[in-house]
Amino acid sequence: MKIEILSIGNEVLSGKTINTNASYISNELIKVGYQVSQHSVISDDIHTIVDSLTEIFQRSSLVICTGGLGPTIDDLTKKAASSFFNLPLEFHEEIYEDLKKRYPDHPVLVDQASVLKGAHIVKNTQGSASGMIVVFKKGCAVFLPGVPFEMQSMFDQVLTFLKKNYPLDTRPFIKELSICLIEEIELDNFIVPFAQKESDVKIGIYPYLGGVHLVLSVNDEKNKEKVERIAKEVKKKYRDKIYDTDRKIELAIYNAFIERGLTLALAESCTGGAISARLTEIAGSSKYLLGSIVTYSNDLKHSILKVSEHTLEKDGAVSKETVRQMIEGIFKITQADYAVAVSGIAGPSGGAKEKPVGTVYVGVGQRGKPPEIGRIFGRGGRLAIVEYTVNCALGILYRNIVYQAKTF
Amino acid sequence: MKIEILSIGNEVLSGKTINTNASYISNELIKVGYQVSQHSVISDDIHTIVDSLTEIFQRSSLVICTGGLGPTIDDLTKKAASSFFNLPLEFHEEIYEDLKKRYPDHPVLVDQASVLKGAHIVKNTQGSASGMIVVFKKGCAVFLPGVPFEMQSMFDQVLTFLKKNYPLDTRPFIKELSICLIEEIELDNFIVPFAQKESDVKIGIYPYLGGVHLVLSVNDEKNKEKVERIAKEVKKKYRDKIYDTDRKIELAIYNAFIERGLTLALAESCTGGAISARLTEIAGSSKYLLGSIVTYSNDLKHSILKVSEHTLEKDGAVSKETVRQMIEGIFKITQADYAVAVSGIAGPSGGAKEKPVGTVYVGVGQRGKPPEIGRIFGRGGRLAIVEYTVNCALGILYRNIVYQAKTF
Repeated sequence: MKIEILSIGNEVLSGKTINTNASYISNELIKVGYQVSQHSVISDDIHTIVDSLTEIFQRSSLVICTGGLGPTIDDLTKKAASSFFNLPLEFHEEIYEDLKKRYPDHPVLVDQASVLKGAHIVKNTQGSASGMIVVFKKGCAVFLPGVPFEMQSMFDQVLTFLKKNYPLDTRPFIKELSICLIEEIELDNFIVPFAQKESDVKIGIYPYLGGVHLVLSVNDEKNKEKVERIAKEVKKKYRDKIYDTDRKIELAIYNAFIERGLTLALAESCTGGAISARLTEIAGSSKYLLGSIVTYSNDLKHSILKVSEHTLEKDGAVSKETVRQMIEGIFKITQADYAVAVSGIAGPSGGAKEKPVGTVYVGVGQRGKPPEIGRIFGRGGRLAIVEYTVNCALGILYRNIVYQAKTF
Repeated sequence: MKIEILSIGNEVLSGKTINTNASYISNELIKVGYQVSQHSVISDDIHTIVDSLTEIFQRSSLVICTGGLGPTIDDLTKKAASSFFNLPLEFHEEIYEDLKKRYPDHPVLVDQASVLKGAHIVKNTQGSASGMIVVFKKGCAVFLPGVPFEMQSMFDQVLTFLKKNYPLDTRPFIKELSICLIEEIELDNFIVPFAQKESDVKIGIYPYLGGVHLVLSVNDEKNKEKVERIAKEVKKKYRDKIYDTDRKIELAIYNAFIERGLTLALAESCTGGAISARLTEIAGSSKYLLGSIVTYSNDLKHSILKVSEHTLEKDGAVSKETVRQMIEGIFKITQADYAVAVSGIAGPSGGAKEKPVGTVYVGVGQRGKPPEIGRIFGRGGRLAIVEYTVNCALGILYRNIVYQAKTF
């Protein structure tokens, strides 16, 4: 069965909103074995929506649409669907009563309580726009609101419907490994010979700033041992750089600290709190992460972390010695077992000949032992350099705590 | 001229990578007056790429494709384009010499130096994959690499080509206003009467967590005064909540602090450094932002920020009194003129009846004056609650410093 995702909204089309809904839906479908063949983004325009649905049902038999179900004047998806399916919009008593309870003063309840006649309703407990599923002779269309957290909270109902009405014949087998601190081309060179041997294994190599995600898959899980054979070789080669926590190195680090009963504190400069923010995305991170001292100014590096004024002047804030003293400072003012410190130049200004924009010193230390400190070099703009620094720092920490492996 | 964006890659299609390229390209095109009519995402498969190009040139006359130009086995866009246009791939001496200089040990230079015969080359100084522009009887296709910072660094060359070869007849006029700390429906109710009066003004209302972006536009800049009339009314109504810094409240805050020559320091708990990380996305933020003390644990709240143990025990870490003492602590250990502090429950666990998940206390203070502290309530998952908290805290700070307006 070919499935497509259609995102409706000028906001996504104009590039002002990034299309996270399509990613979320693809990801959820693939996890349970469905394949997605195309995403499209179109404008909030009745004719365009109708034309797109027509084209999609020439290629595919199921479409999941998001957006345009809200109460404001630019929300036109229900009208378009009504025209496409030739189904009237009908007032739905039960939805109305529920909305009245949840939004006593809302002025547009009647609008929001009208749905396509005969549609299967997808309940929205987080907002006012109900979802709808319409089955017709060419296939099935699902309509969900565009607000990500509303759509996400409703998606389980869609999966339940699909599993019941469109069960799968074969399930693919997918294995993912993420490898920190390597380049795409290195992994590619290593893996090509295996790819030639196991030709029905699909191989995807997806670089991110500071590492690579490897996705190995076969269409039928009966052939999973082919995937496992390649995975085993990759694991042998890159043992101490691999994590397999759904691409989240912050989750691998969480697991490592929790298992060992250890704690961590950070001292950040050029990353501005981004390392800490990433680690705290994992629920429960407060169990091991004590906090982060973001010393963006030299004054704070000196007054809180006790980096010496002499060092800041002689070696500069972006130096091995400053990072060493930041780690010492963190160990003095917290009880943490491990510390990470970074200081660098995210740009676009502030670079110099010996320390161009992108130069970052990263240090990882365990209390009572000499820290490991080295230099990395980020490319691209300010945000890319910060992202690269966050990923490298987490990679170095992960290798250090899990494998006692030194990166520098 | 209808323009489409085609993103090629299983990685985006599977939802593992969010399609930031399409957003970036749309945004850049719209800024200079081009309109984008559709985005599509398809798999790394030669037949699929050819079929999609065929469909696109039935609807539109220009397509910008990203992805699949790299050196690894899953990069198939050049082969597909060669088949679609019936043009051979040709070794390009100049590109080869440049790659040899930049990647002396790279094993796949010859591959990366081959391009479609007769294509206009888009230079890539950040990576190894050159871009290409092909003009043929049905229109024009642009091919760019999928790595965002490479693609972005090349996009100016594409704009130059488009402006020269596809100049615009009329330019649209677009006005954006962002409004913090209001709900979508409130703005909608206010703006509907104006929309009815000025029917050729397109109105987009785009909620984000903690505010709304309003986009007003007309197709021809000759009619810009119609947009300006509505904008003026909105500004009158929401004066002290509006910022117009390309949707970046962090830039509005940067401007406010720099103009006034003031400094800021933060004390974060549930946001884990995310407020600080957001503020430091603006280049030059080190001129006003001293840093952030991320006290994720109660121990650090007490030991560094001097929140009293009595308060932490009696009122709890998530309380008005804790936030008040966090602000006092920040003023003690830094020289900052302004301080922001937050403490809350991002969940999914840690909630209680009186303080459910999503409860956050936010405080903003100016040195020497009593701080403003209040409670906000985030919905959705952990990441949504943090995002909402960051946006609200920045909104409250912005209103406070620019308009001396109190939110609570």
